[in-house]
Amino acid sequence: MTSCPIALKADACIVLGHGSGGRMSAELMEEIFLPAFRNAALEERNDQATVRVPEGRIALSTDSFVVKPLFFPGGNIGELAVYGTVNDLAVGGAIPRFLTAGFILEEGLPMETLRSIVVAMAAAAERCGVSIVTGDTKVVEKGSGDQIFVTTTGVGVVPETVRLSAGGVQVGDRVVLSGSLGDHGITILAQREGMELEGDLQSDAGSLFELCQAVLQAAPGTHAMRDLTRGGLSSALNEIAQSAQVGITVDEARIPVSTTVRGACELFGLDPMYVANEGKMVAFVPEAQAEAALQAMRELPEGAAARIVGQVTDRHPGMVTTRTRIGTERILAMLAQDQLPRIC
Amino acid sequence: MTSCPIALKADACIVLGHGSGGRMSAELMEEIFLPAFRNAALEERNDQATVRVPEGRIALSTDSFVVKPLFFPGGNIGELAVYGTVNDLAVGGAIPRFLTAGFILEEGLPMETLRSIVVAMAAAAERCGVSIVTGDTKVVEKGSGDQIFVTTTGVGVVPETVRLSAGGVQVGDRVVLSGSLGDHGITILAQREGMELEGDLQSDAGSLFELCQAVLQAAPGTHAMRDLTRGGLSSALNEIAQSAQVGITVDEARIPVSTTVRGACELFGLDPMYVANEGKMVAFVPEAQAEAALQAMRELPEGAAARIVGQVTDRHPGMVTTRTRIGTERILAMLAQDQLPRIC
Repeated sequence: MTSCPIALKADACIVLGHGSGGRMSAELMEEIFLPAFRNAALEERNDQATVRVPEGRIALSTDSFVVKPLFFPGGNIGELAVYGTVNDLAVGGAIPRFLTAGFILEEGLPMETLRSIVVAMAAAAERCGVSIVTGDTKVVEKGSGDQIFVTTTGVGVVPETVRLSAGGVQVGDRVVLSGSLGDHGITILAQREGMELEGDLQSDAGSLFELCQAVLQAAPGTHAMRDLTRGGLSSALNEIAQSAQVGITVDEARIPVSTTVRGACELFGLDPMYVANEGKMVAFVPEAQAEAALQAMRELPEGAAARIVGQVTDRHPGMVTTRTRIGTERILAMLAQDQLPRIC
Repeated sequence: MTSCPIALKADACIVLGHGSGGRMSAELMEEIFLPAFRNAALEERNDQATVRVPEGRIALSTDSFVVKPLFFPGGNIGELAVYGTVNDLAVGGAIPRFLTAGFILEEGLPMETLRSIVVAMAAAAERCGVSIVTGDTKVVEKGSGDQIFVTTTGVGVVPETVRLSAGGVQVGDRVVLSGSLGDHGITILAQREGMELEGDLQSDAGSLFELCQAVLQAAPGTHAMRDLTRGGLSSALNEIAQSAQVGITVDEARIPVSTTVRGACELFGLDPMYVANEGKMVAFVPEAQAEAALQAMRELPEGAAARIVGQVTDRHPGMVTTRTRIGTERILAMLAQDQLPRIC
């Protein structure tokens, strides 16, 4: 099986038996997961959690996380797995309530690595007001995985007043961006390349829940919101343009990008419009409410650098264009190849 | 990146770009996932699905699937991912309604392999009456995964009348087993070892939903149900014994095991009580309703071989014992090591 010294607690690591459904699986549950996630549903120790929801609509979202490296400035795979799924619910106008977590562990993963990730997940879940109510762990042989993959699924409650949908975006809507682009993607890239960056760049991994709620309260006419993960701002805008069959134009000069990120992008030939973020969002808001949405974002630390960066037009339906810094217009196409694999 | 010929449709395969969140991710969605899973929530193309539920309790369950090989007699990883999660909901007394699916693909996975798995998932979901409403796909480099891992999360509605819990099992309850043990585990083992088995053994992978509902209708006083996956009957019984702090005794002579499975177990030194099943369950039913539960199971094809195999006692709380074929009693301990890794 493995030569990992399971008897020595301090340097214990994951062996295939931890995925057996037997005694070692139970130990993992008692020693790692339960102490971190402790809640009534989990303590029932059933293979399913039973929770209570009000009548109406619930939002479901799922994401698998394979980020490499596992730990990076500003976060780790566990925090990403919580924030990423919470944010998908939040941009749908939902109140995130419950998470499930599936772990695929590679034989030989140090137990302390798993514990750090799980503890970080618990803290992130608490910050978001969600409970991790059920989960599953599988173990694959050394060489058949890559340390740890985490899949989270979120359940949120959607208030009856919420009517958000990509297809509902209207000509005239303003595009309100919550902050600067590319911090997460460039942080990961720098870690992977062993590159020292100027300044103290770190991932923007964090919850968008409060930001989304603030926007909906200040601008109840908001038509859609998106977080800007894989594929960056460009993918979010292109998906909306195609769903709603509208054109979107953005003004590049108005898009905040830190000098560190801009410098790294130039070095690697990347465009910040395509680089992943883990704590940024964009809202499509009717012109009359756009300023209110902007101010609401700016009142929160995670939205302090918010800007209105573009608008929805009836020209070139299904396409996104940008006005460049030198005044020309270019098409912002959907990302064609992967710039940065395993960014989340 | 890879030498996989993405231009040649017939032998196309997964490349890192399919996990980018850009154009290639969208193509995968349009060409593989949407045609198979087609439903209103998925077609909204949001990062979350919004669905309607009645007021009350919902059940949540999640499982990651890493079975090897991907295809085996009686099923494949996709069907397992649907039935496994549906069954966790079903044994909780829930009506399974929605599934989410997270895919972790290894670069180089043939597109046709993915398509077969996804098509099988869609058919299994239809048989179970559930919709696959949202999902996610990540791609890892060749050598960092093993073709495909699937994580499903299920949401079910729990009728107000249902009061099942491991802790609720009572002294005197009868242990009703739905059929013979070990078919799934031995099928996988035989495939992996390239072993020809007598007879036409295949995995019992299938839905337990109708069986569970039939038991609850015929025996509304049922205290708990469990499916018998990893760790087999032994793990299910030990978990219940510990949760309820009761003793459980089973009569080995009454436990159905096919001659093929028994023969293979003897050959490999395995005990069928510990071997995984993917379409078997056990119910803990008050004595007065046990016969009704048994008859209800037997009326369904998947429960045709059901038997009352044991009972709950006040002796040795927290422990499971079996009466062996030669009349002695032995402790059926929790599985200590993994007999068969990657069984599901």
